[in-house]
Amino acid sequence: MGGTAAYGVAIALREGRTLGEACDVLAVTRPTAVNLAWALARMRESSDGDGDGDADAAFARAAQICDDEIARCEAIGRHGLALIERAVAAAPGGRPVRVLTHCNAGWLATVDWGTALAPVYMAHEAKLPVEVWVDETRPRNQGLLTAWELAQHGVPHTLVADNAGGHLMQRGLVDLCLVGTDRTTREGDVCNKIGTYLKALAAHDNGVPFYVAAPSPSIDWTMAEGRDVPIEERSADEVRRIAGRTPAGEVTTVEIAQSPVANPAFDVTPRRLVTAIITERGVCSASGAGLAGLFPEHA
Amino acid sequence: MGGTAAYGVAIALREGRTLGEACDVLAVTRPTAVNLAWALARMRESSDGDGDGDADAAFARAAQICDDEIARCEAIGRHGLALIERAVAAAPGGRPVRVLTHCNAGWLATVDWGTALAPVYMAHEAKLPVEVWVDETRPRNQGLLTAWELAQHGVPHTLVADNAGGHLMQRGLVDLCLVGTDRTTREGDVCNKIGTYLKALAAHDNGVPFYVAAPSPSIDWTMAEGRDVPIEERSADEVRRIAGRTPAGEVTTVEIAQSPVANPAFDVTPRRLVTAIITERGVCSASGAGLAGLFPEHA
Repeated sequence: MGGTAAYGVAIALREGRTLGEACDVLAVTRPTAVNLAWALARMRESSDGDGDGDADAAFARAAQICDDEIARCEAIGRHGLALIERAVAAAPGGRPVRVLTHCNAGWLATVDWGTALAPVYMAHEAKLPVEVWVDETRPRNQGLLTAWELAQHGVPHTLVADNAGGHLMQRGLVDLCLVGTDRTTREGDVCNKIGTYLKALAAHDNGVPFYVAAPSPSIDWTMAEGRDVPIEERSADEVRRIAGRTPAGEVTTVEIAQSPVANPAFDVTPRRLVTAIITERGVCSASGAGLAGLFPEHA
Repeated sequence: MGGTAAYGVAIALREGRTLGEACDVLAVTRPTAVNLAWALARMRESSDGDGDGDADAAFARAAQICDDEIARCEAIGRHGLALIERAVAAAPGGRPVRVLTHCNAGWLATVDWGTALAPVYMAHEAKLPVEVWVDETRPRNQGLLTAWELAQHGVPHTLVADNAGGHLMQRGLVDLCLVGTDRTTREGDVCNKIGTYLKALAAHDNGVPFYVAAPSPSIDWTMAEGRDVPIEERSADEVRRIAGRTPAGEVTTVEIAQSPVANPAFDVTPRRLVTAIITERGVCSASGAGLAGLFPEHA
C-alpha cells in the first residue's frame, strides 16, 4: 500500500496539488495501516524545499519506495520459504504443506511479490508441494483476490468461509498460518484484517504455527500495545451489499441485508499468539526483544 | 428441526410413502444434527404395527413432538433468562447487556421460541435492556434470518461479519455468547454451525461466558467425544453464490467466486470452552457429570 500511495502523491503533484495537501488527503484515508503513513513521510522528504514539492522528484521517490518494497517482500519471501521448507520436511509421506491465509497479502495489495504470499510463491516456484486455504475474508472478500492471484500462479488453493479455519485446524488440515499486517507494534502485537485474531486463537489452540509477514514499514516503533491501534470502522454497506455476476453474465451489486451493521475493519492479535514475525531482515519472536534484535536502530 | 421433520414424515405418509421410507429419506439429509434422528425415531414409534404407518397417527405424533419442542424451548428460555438477568445486574450503569449469537437458533429454525434466542425474547419481553450482535454466519447467512426475527420482535441488534466477534470481545462489547447446537455429546462437547468454535475461543480468551442452549433431543447420549460427530460437507455453490436484491428490486443469485471450495457446515466446540449448557431441565456444566445430573435416566 505504501508504494501505491507514493505514486498517488506524485500524480497529485503533477495535477497541481501541493505536497502537503496530497499527503494530508491520503493520510486520513486509512487510519490503521502504518506503512501508509511511513510512505507519506518519505514522500514529504521529496519536497524541493519550498514545501510545494516537485513532481519529478516525487515520481523518482515513489519509484524508489516501490523498488524498496519489492526488495523487502522478496527478502520476506526467502525467510518465509525456509519456514515452509521446514514444514515440508516435517510433513508425513511427502504430502503437501497446507498454509492458511487471511485477507490479501499478495502482489495485488503490495507490489510484485506480496508479503504473506511471497514465501508461498517461492515455495511453489521451488516445486515444493504447497497448498493454500484461502479465507473468504468478509466483508470485503479480499480472499477472492488471493484465490485469483494463486490461480494465476498455478498454486493449488481452496476457498473457505472465514468460519471454517478453526475446524480445519482441529482436523489437522493446516500446517501453518501465514498472514500480513497493517501495523505491528514494537512489542509484537499484530493488527491485521478483521478475523485474523480468531485464526490465531485457533492456531494456538491446535499447535499450528502462526506467522506474520511484516515488512519494516508496517512496524510502528512509536506504539507498544496493540490495544492502542486505531481500528477503522467502515461502511455498513460493505456488509449489506455484495457484487457478483448474474446468470446473464453481468456484474451487479445485490443487497443481502438491511439490518443495522457494525463493520470494524481490523483486529489485533496479541503477540502471545504469534509464533514468529517474518521481516525483510529475518525471522524473530513477536516481542520487543525479537524486533529490536533485527532492528537495533529502533531499540 | 425435529418438529419440522416429524411433519415431513406425516405428509409423506399421507402421500402414500411408507413410514420406513419417509424416515430413511429424511435421516440421510442432515448427518450432523441429532435431534432429527431423535424425531424420526419418535415417528417410527407411530407405526400402526404393520410398519406401513398410519398418517393420522403420524400427524398426531408430529403435533405432540412440536408441542414438546415448544415446551422445551420455553423452559430453556426461562433458565437462560436467569443468566441474562444476572448479566443485567452486573452491567455497569444499567447499560444494555450485549449478547453475541451465531447462526439461527430462533423460531425460524425450531418452533415458536427457538433455543438460543428464547432467553433473549423473554428478556426483551421482561423489558430488560438486551441487545444482540448477530453473526452473519457464512456461507449460508443464517444470521440474516436471526436479524430479521429480532427485528420482528423489536429487539435491538447489529449484524456483523463472522470475523468481527473476537474484536468485539477484546473491546469489552460482548457480555455473553449464546448459541444453539446440532449435537452435543454426553460429555458436553458442542457441535454447532461452522465458526462457533472460533467464537468460543475468543470468549474464553476474553473471559466472556459462552452458553449453549441444548434441548435434550440435541444431546447424543451414545457419543462421548465431539471429534466423533460426522461433519456434513455441503455444496461449493453455497460459498460461490449468494442471493440478494438487485437495485431494480429483483431477488437474484450472483456468483462471487469460481475457485475450488471446501464447505464444512459444522464444527465442534470442546467442552472446556463452554461455560454452561442450558437445557429444558436447567443449567449445567458442559460435562458428563453436569448433563447426567440433569438427565439421570441417561447416566
